[in-house]
Amino acid sequence: MTRSLVALDDLLAATDADAYCIDAGSDDSNQLYLSGFDAPDPFFTAYTGDELAVLVSGLEYGRAKKESHADTVGRLSTYDYAERAAEEGQAAAQAGVYADFLADLEVESTLVPERFPVGVADALREAGIAVDVDRDDVIETVRATKTEEELDAVRRATDANETAMAAAEELIAAADVADDGTLVIEEREGGEDGGKTSLTSERVKEEIEVTLLRHGCALDETIVSCGADAADPHDRGSGPLEAGESIIVDIFPREKASKYHSDMTRTFAKGEASDTIAEWFALTEKALEAALDAVEPGATGAEVHAAACDVYEDTGHPTLRSDPDTETGFIHSTGHGVGLDVHERPGLNPRGEELEPGHVITVEPGLYDPDVGGVRIEDIVIVTEDGYENLTGDYPVELVVE
Amino acid sequence: MTRSLVALDDLLAATDADAYCIDAGSDDSNQLYLSGFDAPDPFFTAYTGDELAVLVSGLEYGRAKKESHADTVGRLSTYDYAERAAEEGQAAAQAGVYADFLADLEVESTLVPERFPVGVADALREAGIAVDVDRDDVIETVRATKTEEELDAVRRATDANETAMAAAEELIAAADVADDGTLVIEEREGGEDGGKTSLTSERVKEEIEVTLLRHGCALDETIVSCGADAADPHDRGSGPLEAGESIIVDIFPREKASKYHSDMTRTFAKGEASDTIAEWFALTEKALEAALDAVEPGATGAEVHAAACDVYEDTGHPTLRSDPDTETGFIHSTGHGVGLDVHERPGLNPRGEELEPGHVITVEPGLYDPDVGGVRIEDIVIVTEDGYENLTGDYPVELVVE
Repeated sequence: MTRSLVALDDLLAATDADAYCIDAGSDDSNQLYLSGFDAPDPFFTAYTGDELAVLVSGLEYGRAKKESHADTVGRLSTYDYAERAAEEGQAAAQAGVYADFLADLEVESTLVPERFPVGVADALREAGIAVDVDRDDVIETVRATKTEEELDAVRRATDANETAMAAAEELIAAADVADDGTLVIEEREGGEDGGKTSLTSERVKEEIEVTLLRHGCALDETIVSCGADAADPHDRGSGPLEAGESIIVDIFPREKASKYHSDMTRTFAKGEASDTIAEWFALTEKALEAALDAVEPGATGAEVHAAACDVYEDTGHPTLRSDPDTETGFIHSTGHGVGLDVHERPGLNPRGEELEPGHVITVEPGLYDPDVGGVRIEDIVIVTEDGYENLTGDYPVELVVE
Repeated sequence: MTRSLVALDDLLAATDADAYCIDAGSDDSNQLYLSGFDAPDPFFTAYTGDELAVLVSGLEYGRAKKESHADTVGRLSTYDYAERAAEEGQAAAQAGVYADFLADLEVESTLVPERFPVGVADALREAGIAVDVDRDDVIETVRATKTEEELDAVRRATDANETAMAAAEELIAAADVADDGTLVIEEREGGEDGGKTSLTSERVKEEIEVTLLRHGCALDETIVSCGADAADPHDRGSGPLEAGESIIVDIFPREKASKYHSDMTRTFAKGEASDTIAEWFALTEKALEAALDAVEPGATGAEVHAAACDVYEDTGHPTLRSDPDTETGFIHSTGHGVGLDVHERPGLNPRGEELEPGHVITVEPGLYDPDVGGVRIEDIVIVTEDGYENLTGDYPVELVVE
């Protein structure tokens, strides 16, 4: 994957630090981005501006040479890791090996991200290497601006995501309403002939996740939440879906090959929705449009967030801006960057920084109250030179599913 | 999920530290285990021995009160996080809020795990709180010994895993061999009638992953690697499978509800395998049996690893014990603990600690050479009072699939 390290190079040039170091597995997206190496267990990466070096176990050595961005691949055994671990313990051995590796790279001082492990930092300091924390997490800023290749990955994940959303919507559409108001569907193979079974959050999530797998995407979790569950934006949802209640479907898959994410949300109601839910839905669509209208290069994430807050506050709904302690109303930020992480920079929140072409952001206003349920509509857009490109703009925004 | 914190209590009693603190999201298994709270973004947990306290955003507050193990749930807004972040920046505001939260808990000194973020540690130190690194990572040791409830979760994940392994094996069994030696299967719906399509690693992985989803498990990755790919134990595999080559299928799912993993591997060959692969397979089964024979409470992970190494070295194969730089032969450890992480303590490696009842470990010897391929057989077992219980012992160990 192509990437640009200009801001990191500028930072190294502007400080006394000889290098920028990361110690993490590729589940840490800064590590994956900088090293270009996908490995589950923590490994060490040092970038000097001129040279990118990774230090890995023998098990990862061959693959690191083939697959990583590194100019130099070191292996733990070169630094007698096993012998030192047997003598000094794993932590001391690791620090000693890292210090020797940095000495070979002529690194005496390094910047590290906020979340660099303190155990390693303290040990490097004891070994005489200056370790300063990069409080701005420059690699997270670098990652916010995507190359064309990265954007294409997000586009592919988005296509898969729309297919999964359609599968979920079709399943809800195909359901019948039982006498008790819950949704029921035909039993699958193995059930009794012609029998009906409850349509649960779990069943819809399974449909979504199987669809995503069939389209090259993996995922950790999916939200299909109904009624009072939907009033908690982080509730994943469980149990039978009910007619007339709002059903929030929020899907955030990761393309397996590239590791880039997408993210979108629609809210559905089977049959007639209450007046309150219908009103909230219309208002949330208005907040979405107002926020999208504010998206352009040079605008800040704070301004986009404010545009959504304005719509809600103007109609009497609390937001975290009008009441930081509110547990109902618009109780989250308006959106976030999407890339290797499903939540990354820039943020569309009160502290949201300036938007730039190549940023990928979600725009996702919503309203929540346990007595009513929840409504959220989320598109994912690319910030362009003259505005934005809405990747999910063609997916209908319609509440009622018949 | 029930858990035991005795070793953590003992550590706190034996040191001057007032608390043990973690700053991480629930993707950090120590955080998930200690807090009992599943939330994607980093949050702060402090355990004093008497009290477990978590500090979360307003978005997570209600769920943390309902779902976490915490006696006390704090929220960032109580400590004016947003105002402070606007004035001082996010990092300084976070450290100030954490320091105030710890002051309310009367905590002046804390232990933290090795991988606690250095940015937070440095800021707490600046705020006058002593931060010492727990170099033994006590929570990882605590996690190694499972309760009955945790063991049941691993058993359920294992049942799903065996079902997925059978689905993979059936797919390979159902394949035909094309003239060029690659495996082919009937096209799925949508393909031309009666047409054949290549059976790839990707197709088998999809079958495995869909099967796991249908059985309540998620997964990040799966290994289905063939031929030279299989000679790299961490290669995930890609492209068409070939007759006569070894095909390593290594599956490590996570039960969604409990978050506990399982892990197993079988090696298959479609049709006739080469004499070398057949010989390696028989030898690896022998190494598996030798290693299993060594598993009992009081034995060390190092001893179990040595038992597998002995089998290979006695027949002239290199191991990392006989040659730390070897890239062929037995080039990984014999196994690892399995729980909230797919790789956790105890390790079956040269530094492997003592095994105790309630440990869950894999036993997975293997041989690798790019000129031959790879062979690995992996069972997952529970260490019991008088030996072990092999959870995957009923799944046949048979190379050739017809």
